[in-house]
Amino acid sequence: MDEEFRKDFEELVALMDAGRLLDFKKKAADCLPVDIAEGLEEIEEKARVIKLFRMLPKDISSDVFSYMNSDQQQLIAESATNAELKALVDDMFLDDTVDFLEEMPANVVKKVLQNADESTRKLINQFLNYPENSAGSLMTIEYVDLRDYFTVRKAMDYIRRTGIDKETVYTCYVIDEQRRLVGHVSLRKLIVAPESTYIRDIMDTNTVSATTTDDQEVVAEDFRRYDLTSIAVTDKENRLVGIITIDDIVDVITEENTEDIKKMAAIIPSDEEYSDAGVMHLVAHRLPWLMIMMISATLSSTIITSFESVLAGAVVLTAFIPMLTGSAGNSGSQTSVTIIRNMALGEVELSDWLRVLWKEARVGVVCGAALAAVNFLRMMIFSGTSMMISAVVSVTLMIAIVMAASVGCLLPMGAKRLGLDPAVMASPMITTIVDAASLLIYFMIATVMLGL
Amino acid sequence: MDEEFRKDFEELVALMDAGRLLDFKKKAADCLPVDIAEGLEEIEEKARVIKLFRMLPKDISSDVFSYMNSDQQQLIAESATNAELKALVDDMFLDDTVDFLEEMPANVVKKVLQNADESTRKLINQFLNYPENSAGSLMTIEYVDLRDYFTVRKAMDYIRRTGIDKETVYTCYVIDEQRRLVGHVSLRKLIVAPESTYIRDIMDTNTVSATTTDDQEVVAEDFRRYDLTSIAVTDKENRLVGIITIDDIVDVITEENTEDIKKMAAIIPSDEEYSDAGVMHLVAHRLPWLMIMMISATLSSTIITSFESVLAGAVVLTAFIPMLTGSAGNSGSQTSVTIIRNMALGEVELSDWLRVLWKEARVGVVCGAALAAVNFLRMMIFSGTSMMISAVVSVTLMIAIVMAASVGCLLPMGAKRLGLDPAVMASPMITTIVDAASLLIYFMIATVMLGL
Repeated sequence: MDEEFRKDFEELVALMDAGRLLDFKKKAADCLPVDIAEGLEEIEEKARVIKLFRMLPKDISSDVFSYMNSDQQQLIAESATNAELKALVDDMFLDDTVDFLEEMPANVVKKVLQNADESTRKLINQFLNYPENSAGSLMTIEYVDLRDYFTVRKAMDYIRRTGIDKETVYTCYVIDEQRRLVGHVSLRKLIVAPESTYIRDIMDTNTVSATTTDDQEVVAEDFRRYDLTSIAVTDKENRLVGIITIDDIVDVITEENTEDIKKMAAIIPSDEEYSDAGVMHLVAHRLPWLMIMMISATLSSTIITSFESVLAGAVVLTAFIPMLTGSAGNSGSQTSVTIIRNMALGEVELSDWLRVLWKEARVGVVCGAALAAVNFLRMMIFSGTSMMISAVVSVTLMIAIVMAASVGCLLPMGAKRLGLDPAVMASPMITTIVDAASLLIYFMIATVMLGL
Repeated sequence: MDEEFRKDFEELVALMDAGRLLDFKKKAADCLPVDIAEGLEEIEEKARVIKLFRMLPKDISSDVFSYMNSDQQQLIAESATNAELKALVDDMFLDDTVDFLEEMPANVVKKVLQNADESTRKLINQFLNYPENSAGSLMTIEYVDLRDYFTVRKAMDYIRRTGIDKETVYTCYVIDEQRRLVGHVSLRKLIVAPESTYIRDIMDTNTVSATTTDDQEVVAEDFRRYDLTSIAVTDKENRLVGIITIDDIVDVITEENTEDIKKMAAIIPSDEEYSDAGVMHLVAHRLPWLMIMMISATLSSTIITSFESVLAGAVVLTAFIPMLTGSAGNSGSQTSVTIIRNMALGEVELSDWLRVLWKEARVGVVCGAALAAVNFLRMMIFSGTSMMISAVVSVTLMIAIVMAASVGCLLPMGAKRLGLDPAVMASPMITTIVDAASLLIYFMIATVMLGL
């Protein structure tokens, strides 16, 4: 929270404590809802949270509520009278209500549904049934729908009359008698068009839309690609059922990126915020991959054990194991993360695999040669190892880097080809595989070059 | 590209080849500019790219141009006549022109500037001087500015007259005589307000704004926090100089995430697209960290060498080095990536460090204990190693995991405390450090428990 907003919020609390209701309401109206919600999070005492929330002017309290964390939302919902709860839900956008209810225990959901009118109750139930992360679960029903036979004058009247409750009025969607989406028209176009123009003559029929079951990631891609600020959502019969606005998509993009980053670090993604997540929750999302990778590392142990005679012949080789496996692992991580990210952004396609492999292999050759050369000099000058040992280590380094770059490129693409998420083939998984492969290369080269 | 758009584009090319200019223009008007730009990318022959671009209807060609890649932009700019180039630049939004020029060689920049009128030339030069990734370099000057003494009628007339060339008309900014920002009013509010209302009576003075030198990451955070679709940009004297719209911010968020992901994989970020980046470009962005980490791994070699007598006493210990360093590295990666991402999103603050360390240490204890138990059983049952060796490896595993979790949490926070980017303290860097530390723990425990 900015210093300025923190000071505003502290004044607000002081006005509440002083019982200066009128000044409080005036000050609150000057604050942004998200700042009030964030200020509330820092108040520990439940009674004070409830008191402050109740004092808020009616027209901003539902906005503030939408931004509050679910613990405090639950607190407010449980302490509210039935009438207060109904007023709150009536004032909120449907997508915010659904987001709120998804986090609530059954008793709160029941209390809210009992106090909603029948049509709202039906809608909420329908929305709660859309699959998580689908366009349906993201959308809102507060949109402006026009008919193609409206004139601009009629459309503007309609927007003036109903638009105040809509999430956006800047893109209006045009539907036919069966509520099928036939086009869209921007408010910008409406305000410059002559009033007698028909909507059908100025509407754009090139409307980008999503269906309720589309994954939110696909919808976000459409926003990015077409620079949209809202998108129409239709059911399977192309009937308009809702819209998604850009502010929710910005959250989706951030969420999806966090998910990808976690997967790349071998963490099972969860929606829980870090500060809310308990120790056992974190363990449950980290231990499975740690366990899988520890057991996979048995392969490395087996390789070392079966080359024990080589190691016994030149004990000094052991000292370079961490450097070799580490460098190969780092190179493999660089490649895999590059490929995974580029596939996620649609910059690299599966069909490019040969071109990508060729590029990565060449990068590996150059990096490997540079590292091997530096390593050879360093070993000869500083470590005083024999030239043969230095050569074995450096040749291994060179080959292991090229191998790692190739594996780091092929594994994520292979995972995608098999319909798996490429992100699980990032650093830790690649490291484990590359470890074993580097050791194998190391011992084979040592056997040949040292004649062990 | 969607199948549907691909087919549309193929038809477009066929119409061009058949020389059916009218049908071509009609079809082109039905396509979305970004799809045409993407279709163009797949045409290899330069002459055909130029031909198709020249045939495009005037009102969409500048949009298509904005979406084209810089190689093709250069092709078009070089082949255009002075008059064509002037028309193109006049039609483009200033921020798109600046983006385009930033990628062009000096001769093209000169050609464009020579053909721009003086005021545009001045503006372009000014924009090219804003620091990269600053609000100034992102903003556009095509915004609607109102005065607080305007009536709604006058404001709407003004928007109708000038709005068609503005990047957004949905949030209008209100300035005073000195062009200082005093508030904003949404078009939604304007269209429902009585025509005789004064702007000062309906404007919102709680305007979120940025200054030209603000970093784009900070601006993106404001968009996310306040659900903005545009933001006002002011100079140091609070004079309105531009706006930034959400479509550019969506790109910024994606860009910043890519940058963070690359840093976490020990890659020096670059703006170059993967498909355009040459082998030596990729090497230049990967080799430095590989080299630093290889040299840091000398520490591991030194540790192994100085414990040579321990290893000679129990050669079997060597076999478990990759498993131990690997598991500790993976655990360290999980923690560091979690902390880095949470700090980037503002969920974890530096002041939380003790609370975070305490949580991560406990997660480390639980994960470490689980891994150690499974490893002990596995070694006893499948590997046939002695109980003492199994115990040494398992105790090391347990301690190394707790150490790795603590290091993975402290290093990124320490980096931030020192004003460095925490993202460089992710997987590869942590792995290198944790490798050496695990080995030290391993040999010390072996010395004590095996009495070597």
